[in-house]
Amino acid sequence: MQNIRTYVDEHKERFLNELVELLKIPSVSADSAFSQDMLNTAEAVANALAKAGCDTVEICETRGYPIVYGEKLVGADLPTVLVYGHYDVQPPDPLDLWESPPFEPVIKATALHPEGAIFARGACDDKGQFYMHVKALEYMVQNNALPCNIKFMIEGEEEVGSESLSAFVKENQDKLANDLILISDTGMIANDVPSITTGLRGLSYVEVKVTGPNRDLHSGLYGGAVANPINVLTKMIASLHDENNRITIPGFYDKVEELSPEEREEMAKAPFDLDEYKSALKIDAVYGEKGYTTNERNAIRPTLDVNGIWGGYTGEGAKTVIASKAYAKISMRLVPNQDWKEITSLFTAHFKNIAPAGVSVEVTPHHGGQGYVTPIDNTGYRAASKAYESTFGKVPIPQRSGGSIPIVSLFEKELKSKTILMGFGLDSDAIHSPNEHFGVWNYLKGIETIPYFYKYFAEMSA
Amino acid sequence: MQNIRTYVDEHKERFLNELVELLKIPSVSADSAFSQDMLNTAEAVANALAKAGCDTVEICETRGYPIVYGEKLVGADLPTVLVYGHYDVQPPDPLDLWESPPFEPVIKATALHPEGAIFARGACDDKGQFYMHVKALEYMVQNNALPCNIKFMIEGEEEVGSESLSAFVKENQDKLANDLILISDTGMIANDVPSITTGLRGLSYVEVKVTGPNRDLHSGLYGGAVANPINVLTKMIASLHDENNRITIPGFYDKVEELSPEEREEMAKAPFDLDEYKSALKIDAVYGEKGYTTNERNAIRPTLDVNGIWGGYTGEGAKTVIASKAYAKISMRLVPNQDWKEITSLFTAHFKNIAPAGVSVEVTPHHGGQGYVTPIDNTGYRAASKAYESTFGKVPIPQRSGGSIPIVSLFEKELKSKTILMGFGLDSDAIHSPNEHFGVWNYLKGIETIPYFYKYFAEMSA
Repeated sequence: MQNIRTYVDEHKERFLNELVELLKIPSVSADSAFSQDMLNTAEAVANALAKAGCDTVEICETRGYPIVYGEKLVGADLPTVLVYGHYDVQPPDPLDLWESPPFEPVIKATALHPEGAIFARGACDDKGQFYMHVKALEYMVQNNALPCNIKFMIEGEEEVGSESLSAFVKENQDKLANDLILISDTGMIANDVPSITTGLRGLSYVEVKVTGPNRDLHSGLYGGAVANPINVLTKMIASLHDENNRITIPGFYDKVEELSPEEREEMAKAPFDLDEYKSALKIDAVYGEKGYTTNERNAIRPTLDVNGIWGGYTGEGAKTVIASKAYAKISMRLVPNQDWKEITSLFTAHFKNIAPAGVSVEVTPHHGGQGYVTPIDNTGYRAASKAYESTFGKVPIPQRSGGSIPIVSLFEKELKSKTILMGFGLDSDAIHSPNEHFGVWNYLKGIETIPYFYKYFAEMSA
Repeated sequence: MQNIRTYVDEHKERFLNELVELLKIPSVSADSAFSQDMLNTAEAVANALAKAGCDTVEICETRGYPIVYGEKLVGADLPTVLVYGHYDVQPPDPLDLWESPPFEPVIKATALHPEGAIFARGACDDKGQFYMHVKALEYMVQNNALPCNIKFMIEGEEEVGSESLSAFVKENQDKLANDLILISDTGMIANDVPSITTGLRGLSYVEVKVTGPNRDLHSGLYGGAVANPINVLTKMIASLHDENNRITIPGFYDKVEELSPEEREEMAKAPFDLDEYKSALKIDAVYGEKGYTTNERNAIRPTLDVNGIWGGYTGEGAKTVIASKAYAKISMRLVPNQDWKEITSLFTAHFKNIAPAGVSVEVTPHHGGQGYVTPIDNTGYRAASKAYESTFGKVPIPQRSGGSIPIVSLFEKELKSKTILMGFGLDSDAIHSPNEHFGVWNYLKGIETIPYFYKYFAEMSA
C-alpha cells in the first residue's frame, strides 16, 4: 500500500487542477440567474464521486437544488461514515473588490500561505474542503485502504438555509444511516496550531421592510413632516443594542448557555494575539458586548448584525428624496439552548412593536438553524484528534467557532449520530468575502489527514 | 392684439407637443452617462428661445454643463426681467415604479388633473415650468405685447448644486442686470387655491462613509467581535434626532429664525386638511419635531433626512457578511439665517465626533444653498399677485415652501434684485419621484398668467 503522503505528492497537480475546474462553475444558490450552473455543478460532483470510487452515485431531485449522494460500501460489519458538504457558494459581490475574477481561479502566495493559495469563490467554503474527502476516497480505493463504509451527501443550498436537505434527511433515514458524520466546512487556528471545531453557533436570518408614504417624496416639500422610512429604520436598528452592546430584544438572553468561570479560563488558553487581530483587520479597536473577550464574543455569545441595508437614492451625485421604503437584512448568531425559531419570533414581535406611528413594518424570516456543541470524549473525536497528530505532529485544540452549520443539529436529531468537524481553512481565508482563498498546503494536508481518520475510527470502533 | 387665452386655445396642441419633445431627452445631470443628452437639451432650449423671439441666444460654456442665455430687449427705459429655470432633471430611479417610461411622455387624466397631466421626468421640475415662459414670450412677441426687456438664463446643474451657475452669475453681472428675477420652479396650494411662494429653505447635502474592517467579513466568525459599519452607521444616524425629533448637532438651531406667535397664527390660516394629507400619502400618522404643526415642520423648521443608505449584501436571498463599509446620503433643509456652509461644518465635526473606536468616518459635502424669504410688498410681488387674480379670479396666498432653490439668495447678493417665485405645479405632482407629472391645465394656465405679470410689472414700475 502506497503511503498517503507519497500519493498526494505524486498527484497534487491533478488534485489542484480538478478543484480549479470545479471552482470555475459559478454555483451561487442565492441568485436564480445561476440555476443552470447549479445543476452543472451537481453533475460535476457526481462524476467526481464516481471516478473516485463510489459504487453508487445519484443526483437526487429536491424541491430546490439537487443533492448529490454517493456511497462505497465495503463491509456490513464495518463502521459507516457519512461525509457532508455543499457545492453551492456565497454570492461573489462586491465584484470590484476581487483582485482576480471569482470564478477564474488563480494560485498565488500570501503571507500565511507561502506555498500558494487558490483564489476563487468557494475555494475554502466549501468546494475545496469537501473535495479533500473525494480525493481521500480515491487514495483509499486505489490502495485498498478503506476500512469503513463511506456515504457522501453534498448539497446545493447550504448558503440559503438547506431547506431541501432537511426534508431529504427526514425521508432517507435508512439510506443515510451511519455511525458518524464527518464535515469539513470550518477552520483551524493556524497551520501550526491544528484545531477541531467543537461548537457552532445557531442562526436566525431575517429581512425587514419599513414602509412610510405610498411613494417617494421630495425631501424639501415633505422633509420634517412625515416619517422618513430610512431614518426610522436606523433608529429601530440602533435600538436593538444597548449602551453595553447587549441585544435589547425582550427574552433574547433567557436561554443563553452561561459558561462557568472555569470553562472561560480554559477557553482563554487558546493562543490569541489581540494586536495581530486588529492589525490584520486594520481596525484601531475591537467592539462588542461589555464583559466578554473577543474570543468569547465571537464564539459563546449571541450577536445581531445587519448584513445589508438599502433604501432611497444610492447612485452617483445627489437626489433629495424621501424614500417610500427602506430595507435591511439582519442575522442573529445564536448559542446553545437558544432556539432559532423562538428567537425569530421574539425578533419579529419586538421589531414590529418598536415601529413608530407613520410607518408599517414587515419582517420576513429567511432561514435559521440551531447551535451545536460536540463532545470531545467520543470515538469520532478521538480518531480525528489522532489523525491530526499523525500528520501535523501536534494534538489539535478543541475550539468553539462563531459560525453556523445549521444542519448539524438536524443530523443529530434525525440520524442519531454525532458530527465531527474537521476543518482545514483559516479565518483569514476570506470566506463570504472578496478574494476567498484556500491554502494549497491546507488542501493537500486535508487529503493526507482524512485517510488516517478512517484508519483510527475503524480501529477504535472495532 | 389677440387675447392670450384665445392664443393659448389656438396653439395648445403645439405647446404640448413642443414640451413633450423636450421631455424625451434624458437630461440627468447627476449621472455622467447622460452628458451628451445634457448638451442636446441645452441646444434644444437655445433653439426654442430663438424661435420664440429672443434676438440673442447663446449656449455659454462652463466648467460643467452649459447655461443657455437668451434675451429680447425692447427699450432701455423699460424694466428688465430675468427668467431663471433649469433644463436638467432628477435621476428617474427607481425605474420599476414608473407606470410609463420616464423619458417617453404620456398624457393621462388623474383625480387632481381631470384635463390630463403630462407624465415624464422633468414635466414639472423644471422643463414644463420654464417652458411656460418661453411660450409666454412667443405670445408677447407675436402680438407686439412685450412691455419689458426679458432675459433668460436656463442652467443644467440645478439638481446637482448649480456650481457653474454661481461662477457664471458672478462673472456676468452686466449681462444679467435686471430689475426682477422670475422663477417658476415651485408649486401652488391647489388649482383653485393659487399661491405664491415667499420663502424657501436652504440646503446642506452630504455623503457619509463608515469604514470598519479592511474587508468584508464572515458574520459568524467575526460577528459580535468587531464594529459592524452598518450597525454603527444606524446608531450614528439615529442619534442625530432626540426623542422630540429635534436635531442633536450642537449649534444646529443657534441661528434658526423663530417666528412670532402672530406669524404662526397667520400661517395657520392657509387651508390644510391633515386627514386628506395623511390619506394622500397612505400614512396613519404624521411625524416630526414636537411643538410644531405639519405646515410649520415642512416650511419654517429645519430638517435632517437620509436620502439614501446602502451597505453589505442587498441582492436576492441571504448572505452572512459583515460589510467593510456603509454609506448614506443625508440632506438638511435649512431656514433663514442658517448658513449652509456653517451647518455643513457643524454636521461634519459632530458626525466624526460621535464615531466609536473601531471605525473611521468620512464626510463629503455634495452641495448646498441658503434659505430665502421674499417680501410681499414690492412691485414684483404685487404684479404677480394681480396677474394670478386676472387669470384665476382669486388673490393668491403668500406661502412658505419647504423646498430649496439654493441659487436664489446668490442672485440677490450678486445681482441686487429680488426674486418672485411663480410656481404652477402641485405638491402631488411627484417631482423627484416616479411618475412625475404636470397638469395640462396648469401648464396652459401658467402660459396665460405670465403675460399679465409683464403687463402689471411694467405699469407698476413706470
